[in-house]
Amino acid sequence: DEIRAFAREIVEKEIGKHAADGLGRVDYAVASGGAKVLRHSEAYSASRVMGWFSGNVRSDAMKVLQPSFGQPGECFPLKGDTGFVDVKLRTAIVPEAITLEHVSKSVAFDISSAPKHCKVWGWLQNEEDTQKEHLLTEFTYDLEKSVAQTFNVLDPKGEDSIVIDTIRLELMSNHGSPTHTCIYRVRVHGHQPNES
Amino acid sequence: DEIRAFAREIVEKEIGKHAADGLGRVDYAVASGGAKVLRHSEAYSASRVMGWFSGNVRSDAMKVLQPSFGQPGECFPLKGDTGFVDVKLRTAIVPEAITLEHVSKSVAFDISSAPKHCKVWGWLQNEEDTQKEHLLTEFTYDLEKSVAQTFNVLDPKGEDSIVIDTIRLELMSNHGSPTHTCIYRVRVHGHQPNES
Amino acid sequence: DEIRAFAREIVEKEIGKHAADGLGRVDYAVASGGAKVLRHSEAYSASRVMGWFSGNVRSDAMKVLQPSFGQPGECFPLKGDTGFVDVKLRTAIVPEAITLEHVSKSVAFDISSAPKHCKVWGWLQNEEDTQKEHLLTEFTYDLEKSVAQTFNVLDPKGEDSIVIDTIRLELMSNHGSPTHTCIYRVRVHGHQPNES
Ligand SMILES: [K+]
Ligand SMILES: [K+]
Ligand SMILES: [K+]
Repeated sequence: DEIRAFAREIVEKEIGKHAADGLGRVDYAVASGGAKVLRHSEAYSASRVMGWFSGNVRSDAMKVLQPSFGQPGECFPLKGDTGFVDVKLRTAIVPEAITLEHVSKSVAFDISSAPKHCKVWGWLQNEEDTQKEHLLTEFTYDLEKSVAQTFNVLDPKGEDSIVIDTIRLELMSNHGSPTHTCIYRVRVHGHQPNES
Repeated sequence: DEIRAFAREIVEKEIGKHAADGLGRVDYAVASGGAKVLRHSEAYSASRVMGWFSGNVRSDAMKVLQPSFGQPGECFPLKGDTGFVDVKLRTAIVPEAITLEHVSKSVAFDISSAPKHCKVWGWLQNEEDTQKEHLLTEFTYDLEKSVAQTFNVLDPKGEDSIVIDTIRLELMSNHGSPTHTCIYRVRVHGHQPNES
Repeated sequence: DEIRAFAREIVEKEIGKHAADGLGRVDYAVASGGAKVLRHSEAYSASRVMGWFSGNVRSDAMKVLQPSFGQPGECFPLKGDTGFVDVKLRTAIVPEAITLEHVSKSVAFDISSAPKHCKVWGWLQNEEDTQKEHLLTEFTYDLEKSVAQTFNVLDPKGEDSIVIDTIRLELMSNHGSPTHTCIYRVRVHGHQPNES
């Protein structure tokens, strides 16, 4: 009975987290919260859904701010093995961590289009000094680990806390595809400046 | 081995329930089953997605009859801290319980817009005697409990079983927001009069 | 502690599979991967969403290639208790197994519209010899088992491996409804001919 109680407790906690957008952590880049893709490097045009453009943004670029529900193809394809996506957050925050998610390799048609080495930059848009771009984190997406991988922001607790409302996910390399790289979802965690 | 079997059994049962619309219980108010929002109190117009109107119903009002997939913002915002949503069920039923669901506070941007004290009324539409509104249940949505909270209908086994095809979710108070209250999802459980 | 570790391991594996489209197995018939419904027997027209036609295919026929998220009604209704749906796969494959999925009976309004006895045929479209239709498998969907039921292809390891890019799900009977049969989702598993 004690064992059953143990097991149930762990199951309920994990399913609760799964039901809470998978991670149970606030995401200031989620589309349903008002975040937007501002611009991106050239999209992969041989993709099945070509998408129309609005400003600098292809219609399917918003997929990077939406859940994928374990479905292969629910991503935004960038041309080549380098590129970027710029995202306006829901509101200005002190960033704490970035999550990059790809589809499970168990259901992927071609895992070579997964992102590999990435950098994430952050800044406050419409700031007078537009030079203040901060490197938030730099990481390698590991195909052997879980689908959603979270990386802490470098030195987030420094005495000069960074406040940002825009990020750039910069793709430095992928897992082998010469033609394109699929971005399934990026999330931005942190807190509002007036919160602890 | 016995412990593994125990654990697996619990996990499979819980995941099965999670995959069965979260609760594993028939919902006569689910949009995909044909339920509809008939009318509602004034919607919160500062919301990101304004929505168009059809009759008395704003386009995003149907969100209260659809799953939210753990996404903040997948709700219908009512203006203020009181209000109502009227729902025509898929078919006439003997009501047994009501479920109110909110997004997990672990991913919510502002939990103060969650509903708090609610009443649910039920009636049979187009009945000659339009006075027959029944108070089905009255409850407080508790932010410390699970995201989907189910409340039994008061005295559902009385000798005069109630049959209804329409409900009103009446919002009496929320968890603090002066401007609006978000309704993520309401479900209505019961059985058809000819079923046991 | 050891027990907790056991339980957590099982939970994480099961939730990982759940998050990987439910099965953790590549599906060459998934809509987001580029598969399409080519044609189908007469659809059930009394259904709530009538759908428009394009060629031989009603708009809601694509539901059979998409996830249902545990929602009753997220299916394609065929008229009567026999019929078929033809699906063009994402690419040509050596088929290994077929999965048929229905909504959980715990949330279904009417389980009598579930498929029962089925056959699945496969062929390579645009082949010169159009007679080469292969019976891939024949099975009975069991209402007492899990919602997604997988059936191996008959003799998939024969010396003449079959290569197909199109399948027909043929409905031979259902669980009792005289009017219609709901197809929630069909999946096709296998590998590309150049893969092991
Ligand atoms: K996505
Ligand atoms: K919802
Ligand atoms: K479906």
